[in-house]
Amino acid sequence: MESYKIVLVGAGRVATQLGKALVTAGYPVLQVYSRTEASAMALANSLAEHSNFPVEGTTSLVDIRKDADLYIVALKDSALQELVPALVQGRSQGLFVHTAGSIPMDIWKGLTPRYGVFYPMQTFSKWRSIDFETVPFFLEADSAADLQCLRTVAEHLGSKVYEVSSEQRKYLHIAAVFACNFANHMYALSAELLAKQGLPFETMLALVDETARKVHELSPVEAQTGPAVRYDQNVIQRHLEMLSDEPLMQELYEKVSQSIHCLGGRKHEEMPD
Amino acid sequence: MESYKIVLVGAGRVATQLGKALVTAGYPVLQVYSRTEASAMALANSLAEHSNFPVEGTTSLVDIRKDADLYIVALKDSALQELVPALVQGRSQGLFVHTAGSIPMDIWKGLTPRYGVFYPMQTFSKWRSIDFETVPFFLEADSAADLQCLRTVAEHLGSKVYEVSSEQRKYLHIAAVFACNFANHMYALSAELLAKQGLPFETMLALVDETARKVHELSPVEAQTGPAVRYDQNVIQRHLEMLSDEPLMQELYEKVSQSIHCLGGRKHEEMPD
Repeated sequence: MESYKIVLVGAGRVATQLGKALVTAGYPVLQVYSRTEASAMALANSLAEHSNFPVEGTTSLVDIRKDADLYIVALKDSALQELVPALVQGRSQGLFVHTAGSIPMDIWKGLTPRYGVFYPMQTFSKWRSIDFETVPFFLEADSAADLQCLRTVAEHLGSKVYEVSSEQRKYLHIAAVFACNFANHMYALSAELLAKQGLPFETMLALVDETARKVHELSPVEAQTGPAVRYDQNVIQRHLEMLSDEPLMQELYEKVSQSIHCLGGRKHEEMPD
Repeated sequence: MESYKIVLVGAGRVATQLGKALVTAGYPVLQVYSRTEASAMALANSLAEHSNFPVEGTTSLVDIRKDADLYIVALKDSALQELVPALVQGRSQGLFVHTAGSIPMDIWKGLTPRYGVFYPMQTFSKWRSIDFETVPFFLEADSAADLQCLRTVAEHLGSKVYEVSSEQRKYLHIAAVFACNFANHMYALSAELLAKQGLPFETMLALVDETARKVHELSPVEAQTGPAVRYDQNVIQRHLEMLSDEPLMQELYEKVSQSIHCLGGRKHEEMPD
C-alpha cells in the first residue's frame, strides 16, 4: 500500500473520519486540502500522529500534489461542483472520487479521464470515532480497473462494499435521509414533548435502542407497533388533541399515522398503551 | 416475596414479557386470565416452567382469584375500559394496576379502593425477550403505600423507576409514539425506497444503529444531520422531485424537513452527501 498515495480534499467530518481510518489501515495520506489553514493543519497534524508518512496541509488548490494515485474529495455539495475543474487540472493521471451520496459520477466526465464515487453510508460526528467495519461503501467508477482500486481500499478498511449506479445511489441517499435524519427528528420531537413535562429524554433510550435492534431481525413493516398500525382512532384522536398547541407536530403526527396505516397493517406487533 | 401473590389479566406481549420477568424475579404469578383458552393456557404453562409455584389459566372473569395482592391488567385499551367493573368485583382488598401508558389512573376511581398504574416503557415483541433492567417503569398509585409496593416490584425487576402523574404519562406515551413508532416508520419508508432499487435494508443498519447510539451522548437536536438542518435547498428539491410518484412520502419529506429546520439549526453535525 506504500505506493498508493492519497490526497484528501476537505477537512470536515467525512474527511476526518475517513482519513483516520485510511492512515490506520496503513495508507499514505500525504496531503490535506481545506479552504481554511486551521482545519487543513488540524487534520494533517492529527493524521500524521497515526501515520508512518508526513502529512502536509494546504489551502492552495494549485499546491495540491500532482503525483497522488487517489484524490478523495469530501466537500459540501456546492463546493464540490465549484472546485472540480480546478482540482483535476494537471492531475490527469490520478483517480478522482467524491464521497457525496447525492452527486452523480458524471460531474467528473470530460474533465478528467479517471473518476468514480466512494460513498461511505454513515452519519459522521466530529467527536465520535466510526468503526468502518460496520460502514457499507457504495462504489462506482468509470472503468473496471478503477472500480477494483476503490474496492481494494474500502475492503482494507474492513467495510462491506456495494457497487451501485448513480441512479441507485440517489435513492440510497434519500433512503438514508429517512432512516437517519428523519428518524433522529422523531427523537427530537419526542424530546421536545418530554421537556415540556419536565421529563428527560433518557426515559426513551431503551425504546430507541430496541426499535433500532428490532429491524436487524424483522423488516421495519413487520416491526411496526403503536396506535397507527392498529388504527386505534381513540388514541390517535386523543394524541392529536394533545398536540393542538403544536400545529406542525400535530400535522406530522397525522400524516405519519396515515402513512403507517397505508404501508403496514399486514403484520404487526404491539406496543404497550 | 412469597406472600406477594400476583394475577396477570391479559396474555398478550406485555403480559407475556412482564410475567416472565416476574416469575424469574421470584414472584408468585398464580393465575393468568385471557379471553381465549389457548392464550391463557399457553402463558400459564410457559410461566409455570420458570416458577416455583403452580400457574393457573382461566377464561372466566368470575374465576379470577379473590386472594391476590396485585392484579396487573395488561389488556388493549378498549378491553381494559370494558372489563374494569367486572375485574374489581369482590376483590376490594387487592391492588389493581394497568400497564397502558395512555389510560389515566382514574379509570379505577370509585370502583375499587386500591389502584395505580404500572407502565413499562418499551416496545414488546412476542419473540424477543426484554431485559427489564433497561426498561424504565412509570408508576402512579392512589396511596403512598401502594406506590411503594409498585416501586418495590419494579425495582426487583431491575428497572429504573419514575413516579409520574397521569397527565405526564399521557405525554410520555405520545413521546414514545414519536421515538419508537414514528422512527420505525422512517425505517419502513427507507426500506420501501431501497426495495424499488433492488437494494436490501441491511445497507441502512449501520446508520440506524449509529443514529440511535448518538442520542445517548448528544441531544437529538444536537445530533441532527442531513440536508434539512443545513436547509440545503438543492438537495431537498432534488429529493422532492425523486419522490413525485409517491405523493404521501413526498409530503412527509417536505413536512419533516420543515420541522427539522424549525426545531434545529442551532447546533448540528454533518452527514455525507
